[in-house]
Amino acid sequence: MAPTTPRLVVPIDLTKKPSEQKVPLHNRWHPDIPSVADVTEGEVFRIEMLDCNGGAVGDNDTAHDLNTANIFAVHYLSGPIRVLDKEAMPAKAGDLLAVEICNLGPLPGSEWGYTASHDRERGGSFLADHFPSATKAIWYFEGIYAHSPQIPGVRFAGIPHPGLIGTAPSMELLNIWNERERELQEEGHKSMTLSEHVHKRPFACMPTPDGCLLGKIEEGTPEWEKIAKEAARTVPGRENGGNCDIKNLSTGSKVYLPVFVDGANLSAGDMHFSQGDGEISLCGAIEMHGFLELKCEIIRGGMREYLTPMGPTPLHVNPIFEIGPVEPRFSEWLVFEGISVDESGKQHYLDASIAFKRAVLNAIDYISKFGYSKEQVYLLLSACPCEGRIAAIVDAPNACATFAVPTAIFDQDIRPKPGKIPMGARLVRKPDVMKCTYAGNLPITKNPSANA
Amino acid sequence: MAPTTPRLVVPIDLTKKPSEQKVPLHNRWHPDIPSVADVTEGEVFRIEMLDCNGGAVGDNDTAHDLNTANIFAVHYLSGPIRVLDKEAMPAKAGDLLAVEICNLGPLPGSEWGYTASHDRERGGSFLADHFPSATKAIWYFEGIYAHSPQIPGVRFAGIPHPGLIGTAPSMELLNIWNERERELQEEGHKSMTLSEHVHKRPFACMPTPDGCLLGKIEEGTPEWEKIAKEAARTVPGRENGGNCDIKNLSTGSKVYLPVFVDGANLSAGDMHFSQGDGEISLCGAIEMHGFLELKCEIIRGGMREYLTPMGPTPLHVNPIFEIGPVEPRFSEWLVFEGISVDESGKQHYLDASIAFKRAVLNAIDYISKFGYSKEQVYLLLSACPCEGRIAAIVDAPNACATFAVPTAIFDQDIRPKPGKIPMGARLVRKPDVMKCTYAGNLPITKNPSANA
Amino acid sequence: MAPTTPRLVVPIDLTKKPSEQKVPLHNRWHPDIPSVADVTEGEVFRIEMLDCNGGAVGDNDTAHDLNTANIFAVHYLSGPIRVLDKEAMPAKAGDLLAVEICNLGPLPGSEWGYTASHDRERGGSFLADHFPSATKAIWYFEGIYAHSPQIPGVRFAGIPHPGLIGTAPSMELLNIWNERERELQEEGHKSMTLSEHVHKRPFACMPTPDGCLLGKIEEGTPEWEKIAKEAARTVPGRENGGNCDIKNLSTGSKVYLPVFVDGANLSAGDMHFSQGDGEISLCGAIEMHGFLELKCEIIRGGMREYLTPMGPTPLHVNPIFEIGPVEPRFSEWLVFEGISVDESGKQHYLDASIAFKRAVLNAIDYISKFGYSKEQVYLLLSACPCEGRIAAIVDAPNACATFAVPTAIFDQDIRPKPGKIPMGARLVRKPDVMKCTYAGNLPITKNPSANA
Amino acid sequence: MAPTTPRLVVPIDLTKKPSEQKVPLHNRWHPDIPSVADVTEGEVFRIEMLDCNGGAVGDNDTAHDLNTANIFAVHYLSGPIRVLDKEAMPAKAGDLLAVEICNLGPLPGSEWGYTASHDRERGGSFLADHFPSATKAIWYFEGIYAHSPQIPGVRFAGIPHPGLIGTAPSMELLNIWNERERELQEEGHKSMTLSEHVHKRPFACMPTPDGCLLGKIEEGTPEWEKIAKEAARTVPGRENGGNCDIKNLSTGSKVYLPVFVDGANLSAGDMHFSQGDGEISLCGAIEMHGFLELKCEIIRGGMREYLTPMGPTPLHVNPIFEIGPVEPRFSEWLVFEGISVDESGKQHYLDASIAFKRAVLNAIDYISKFGYSKEQVYLLLSACPCEGRIAAIVDAPNACATFAVPTAIFDQDIRPKPGKIPMGARLVRKPDVMKCTYAGNLPITKNPSANA
Repeated sequence: MAPTTPRLVVPIDLTKKPSEQKVPLHNRWHPDIPSVADVTEGEVFRIEMLDCNGGAVGDNDTAHDLNTANIFAVHYLSGPIRVLDKEAMPAKAGDLLAVEICNLGPLPGSEWGYTASHDRERGGSFLADHFPSATKAIWYFEGIYAHSPQIPGVRFAGIPHPGLIGTAPSMELLNIWNERERELQEEGHKSMTLSEHVHKRPFACMPTPDGCLLGKIEEGTPEWEKIAKEAARTVPGRENGGNCDIKNLSTGSKVYLPVFVDGANLSAGDMHFSQGDGEISLCGAIEMHGFLELKCEIIRGGMREYLTPMGPTPLHVNPIFEIGPVEPRFSEWLVFEGISVDESGKQHYLDASIAFKRAVLNAIDYISKFGYSKEQVYLLLSACPCEGRIAAIVDAPNACATFAVPTAIFDQDIRPKPGKIPMGARLVRKPDVMKCTYAGNLPITKNPSANA
Repeated sequence: MAPTTPRLVVPIDLTKKPSEQKVPLHNRWHPDIPSVADVTEGEVFRIEMLDCNGGAVGDNDTAHDLNTANIFAVHYLSGPIRVLDKEAMPAKAGDLLAVEICNLGPLPGSEWGYTASHDRERGGSFLADHFPSATKAIWYFEGIYAHSPQIPGVRFAGIPHPGLIGTAPSMELLNIWNERERELQEEGHKSMTLSEHVHKRPFACMPTPDGCLLGKIEEGTPEWEKIAKEAARTVPGRENGGNCDIKNLSTGSKVYLPVFVDGANLSAGDMHFSQGDGEISLCGAIEMHGFLELKCEIIRGGMREYLTPMGPTPLHVNPIFEIGPVEPRFSEWLVFEGISVDESGKQHYLDASIAFKRAVLNAIDYISKFGYSKEQVYLLLSACPCEGRIAAIVDAPNACATFAVPTAIFDQDIRPKPGKIPMGARLVRKPDVMKCTYAGNLPITKNPSANA
Repeated sequence: MAPTTPRLVVPIDLTKKPSEQKVPLHNRWHPDIPSVADVTEGEVFRIEMLDCNGGAVGDNDTAHDLNTANIFAVHYLSGPIRVLDKEAMPAKAGDLLAVEICNLGPLPGSEWGYTASHDRERGGSFLADHFPSATKAIWYFEGIYAHSPQIPGVRFAGIPHPGLIGTAPSMELLNIWNERERELQEEGHKSMTLSEHVHKRPFACMPTPDGCLLGKIEEGTPEWEKIAKEAARTVPGRENGGNCDIKNLSTGSKVYLPVFVDGANLSAGDMHFSQGDGEISLCGAIEMHGFLELKCEIIRGGMREYLTPMGPTPLHVNPIFEIGPVEPRFSEWLVFEGISVDESGKQHYLDASIAFKRAVLNAIDYISKFGYSKEQVYLLLSACPCEGRIAAIVDAPNACATFAVPTAIFDQDIRPKPGKIPMGARLVRKPDVMKCTYAGNLPITKNPSANA
Repeated sequence: MAPTTPRLVVPIDLTKKPSEQKVPLHNRWHPDIPSVADVTEGEVFRIEMLDCNGGAVGDNDTAHDLNTANIFAVHYLSGPIRVLDKEAMPAKAGDLLAVEICNLGPLPGSEWGYTASHDRERGGSFLADHFPSATKAIWYFEGIYAHSPQIPGVRFAGIPHPGLIGTAPSMELLNIWNERERELQEEGHKSMTLSEHVHKRPFACMPTPDGCLLGKIEEGTPEWEKIAKEAARTVPGRENGGNCDIKNLSTGSKVYLPVFVDGANLSAGDMHFSQGDGEISLCGAIEMHGFLELKCEIIRGGMREYLTPMGPTPLHVNPIFEIGPVEPRFSEWLVFEGISVDESGKQHYLDASIAFKRAVLNAIDYISKFGYSKEQVYLLLSACPCEGRIAAIVDAPNACATFAVPTAIFDQDIRPKPGKIPMGARLVRKPDVMKCTYAGNLPITKNPSANA
């Protein structure tokens, strides 16, 4: 007889604020954030997590909360979890931590989520130059399926995953991060390609005490002040995994994370009920409060054995993972192509970001012809299980990217056919997504061919 | 009783030179290249095609032919084919041409192909800064399977597809191409991201009479001289489709191409027995002589009905397609992550090309630990059905790309496990790929962490 | 804001006996068993269920409980649920009830199950003539995965499903059942094919008050006495669905059940974490306590519109269903063939049962060569997601059946290869399954070719 | 440089009769039929084959040829092929012959096929008691796709396969076959289940010189006379593989055949462009002239190492196989259930054949509501890639079988929905299949519930 019910090591109480949870949360990466629990190799354990915004965006009828949430507070993480082997020896720097995602889902009693874009001045999104204002759609879950009152006529099985899972950085790695991101922050305006099109905020998200939560370290103490100033923001994925937003890191998958500090100090958060490749609208998955059931294995010395550093130090590595067996299965896809020519007609050199942007724009315009507003499609394609591929990146000067949309999620046939589209672009399905006004000054990209 | 055998409209004789084929070939895009055959909507027809290099790269024991082939002569295309409706009215500009790929494969009697990279001074590849010399591996086909004497221990079902299929551009579209590419050619060195890492040749491939083949237009005539100077090279995919190198455009798929000239003037070539997303080594698919069996449908006015222009003119569109039902099926994948930090450790802004490059480099280094040279893995991952994804492109400053390798193609288990790798990096499987020496001066990217 | 958490309409308390649950259970089909709850079309609701044996078979170290459980008490069902439309009108006889399985799984806190075979005198199994004694293996769940201490070296993602889901029969239908099964019971010994090989108990399971549970109807009352004598046993699937044990009725699927009585009176039970086609060892799925989250839709008059009766009355119909999108995905299968020649070498006429039996026997013998006892393989193939097909049923006199085993569930490569099997049949993996002695007199089928 | 083009070892000339082919064909199993060619382990070779009827059923507008073809002449086989190892030693009895199906398809120039049922007096089909007359539909191929003028509104990718592939029996095995089938022939009328419903001809197909073709053995010689009297008909699949009609034995699969005679003497025929599980209408696949490209490997002693005999002798074995990676992929299925209660309402005991028959009948009646005649659906479901499963075979007295139809092959949505079926059963899509009159006396099964 074995203990089979996963041990709950981080509980969440949705009636309490993020800062008041019994097991304290954190929203920064720093080696000195103390672990909140120990787990043993082979043990299946459970952690619960707040959504990325810690509950600041609600199941209500306005997108206004996007404009009032503290954007420095994302992502609320549960952990760090210290991982021990069966002899109670902690994982060591240089090991590889194999983390199997045995199960995951929304928190029981909270079967809903949202997809949103931020105002261009507050974080924007991949298409912030086209969609500058905050928008929001609510999704309700029916078991494996999601549907949204604001995006009628679609329903699909999600591919749930943690947007963010990673180990704690060592001080050395943290310094590398802060240095390279500060350099980009300062020099990034000189960059010539995607940034001129999508820049919308600081190029990087530098450390700031604003909104900072550091687990067991009490706010206001000198230790807190010091760490808050140097702890890395959780926004980008990095060498430790982190906010990679990889939709295929779903049920049954296994991720191999490098270990940088004693105990590995695993954290996770930013649970997604579903997401398309790219997570294009930024707050673009179906964001939810959720749980993870995990099982860890320590591969001693595995970082050196399996990961080749790619950069100035042995720390410049990336995680690898195996895909699980139960992703939703679709046999029919409509695929949109894009090349690295931007909306003004300018040619870029093998730029996959530009090519992908164009493929996504093509998909949005196409699907909007079937009775949707472009904002509806933007949020939909951000949240549903689309596949974004780099098809070819050698045929200079054009990279070719593709964006594949599963056709079975629609209640109508969206494939091209002789004759007119039955529905027509005018007849927008109601209600639309919730939307705020954009009051900023950043330029909107015009598509010169678009009809007013 | 229906005629069911596809009519052969473009035959290839492998004993003859590209310029001596009975139905003349072409290797440029220009509206004035005359069509070589008519086909009718609904009819299944067959075209045969030389490989991209027109036979200049052989099934032999050297990579030297990569260095002697005329790089201005790619890609040898069969066509243009004029498409008529059932009343014999040709497709018109503004229509959408639905082309179903009913069947395709190697030319009977020529069941082999090759994967190669070019010398950095002659075209290079996605990783030319790491792999600067010409390399080559030969593949032999056994029905749906391919294997290579130079890359022992792998065998896989290909996902055959035309690397290149497209309609002829109008003069207006051709001028747009030439102008924007010339501008990049002249100004590209100012670009700050990927190009500084992978530049290896002119930023764009501008029109040149060198190696030019123009179908029925006889070389040396004034018409030939004029067109050869302005006809677009076929290297990049563009608004007309063309060399998109999308591996999923495989058997049973259906591509919707915009029509720019009367008759559509469909051409195709660059047949691939298999390719991974990215086609990373440039000549990176399994290049082969092949055939296509196609069926066309004209959707009158479909360009306006279904494609939204994205750019200064109504011609700035891209094809869309549906995926076919018989792609090879793999259930287990090992996936490599990459972020937009380059090999020097420099941070880039949401640059999917950099992130993808890093994911690919990680995959190459990893798999080489199992008994392969890096060149073997480079060509393998370029040719086998890997999936390259843009996982997230909003988590500034890091784009996150993934590169997924199907594990079933190997004769060993390549997943990480406790303990040492059974084989070890030293024990390279023999023979290696064929390789030339790099004698150029362009800089090689050093991975500061790599052991000499 | 919508209520999104499924309403719990039938709770289970695992600390209480089946007969003491707050919402009473039942284990018979009868129109007069009163409904225990109402649900409305479109509402997602939750029912919890005891395993088929009501907890009589435990997570312990003996198979003895198989021999002591009351075999007349299976299956403990939750329900009947009365289904109303949005105007509160109940479903009517002649309607079709579309039931979507939005979610399902083990009861939280009870993440384990068992696979067993019964003693030949007490129910037996498909291969009771080969495996006459009670056997048992325990499975532990790690999220989507199951593994068994008694069957080392295998682990797989389950395809969870309700073994039993159905609507209540009308009195007319119940009479049809009882009559035809009684006739078989009395005349079945004259049957010449499968039964002579696998008969092991009464041909049919006729009504009996022994072990009978009738929901809200109190035991000992005259009503109870009457119904208990005529209520159908739940063992076979029938026109109302019921115990069909179809593994593909998994997450996300939708079953269309005929309605025979007012309110439809839906019941379910016999939850399986996983099962192979055939459920060959009878108690042969991974039996568990579980929950279902369901959503109903009433298709008025749908029975007549969609189901053609096949038999003497309009009640002779069968349910239909759509498969869900998240079944576990396997790309490699080893497939065993069987023809309708029995173990004595006798030829049968197009008998798919015999052909399937032989395919299964072939699979068991084959896999046992890799270090397993035949009992281990018997329970494994009964429980893991194998596919049993009728390949051809026209090539007289042989039906051809196939039994496909996914190879990825093993920690070794089980495909045939030149040379000897690495492990060898002698080296049985320990511990073995739990086993009782068979003390009965029924004949054991000898395979004349088997080595002692 | 390797020889990569498969060597053609058995050519077919469609302008000649079956008995006049350059390499003679055979249509019986006998150890003394001489091999027609040698192949070597590892070599990819090609054989061409006539369709099962040797061209007697044509692409014309009548089903009459079904009634005139010699039913004793099926199946025309190409071979036997003698298989040698690399040292030129032939395969020996007791070896296992691994045959990889590298490629297959229709004969170039003959891109069509047919699906048919026979008259009940001449072979019938699985549902001969419902569909007693000869029917026929012609299919035309467009690459991987098939469509039929007689069954409008469906088109699908086939799953091509050899209906028949096997090794030659030894004399001992042949005697076993003839004996057991003769016994059934004589005693079969005493059988009580399926045969009483579908009997339609002799229970078994015993040896007969009528229509006999014996390869290199000249008709009229004493040797011919002797062999013709004892050579087994090819109709049923048996220990040597043979006519198993397994649709999943498709491109890229690998079948392991037992070897009974020196050289293995491999034969194949009965090529199918597509078939559903069951091949229910008997001539029920899309029958075509075709080719196979095969590669053999000899596993020395593999019969003993891998196959356990199941019967009185070591020859009582069955082949096993691995499924290939490129079967057509469908994500949506409508599934029909059947239980072992026959059309008269009679209960049978765990009879999978009866359960399957009922599932198929349910499917036919259901789909016919969408504008088809029952004959159209019968031939369609026989030919398209349906899946027939044995869902449960332990829930006495009912076996439960399922029959799954891929919904994407239809040009309409065939799932149940509230409201009426748009098309209606009356409006049969024209033209219908070709049909002969049934002039025999065998009883037709009435469905008592069917409306005249």
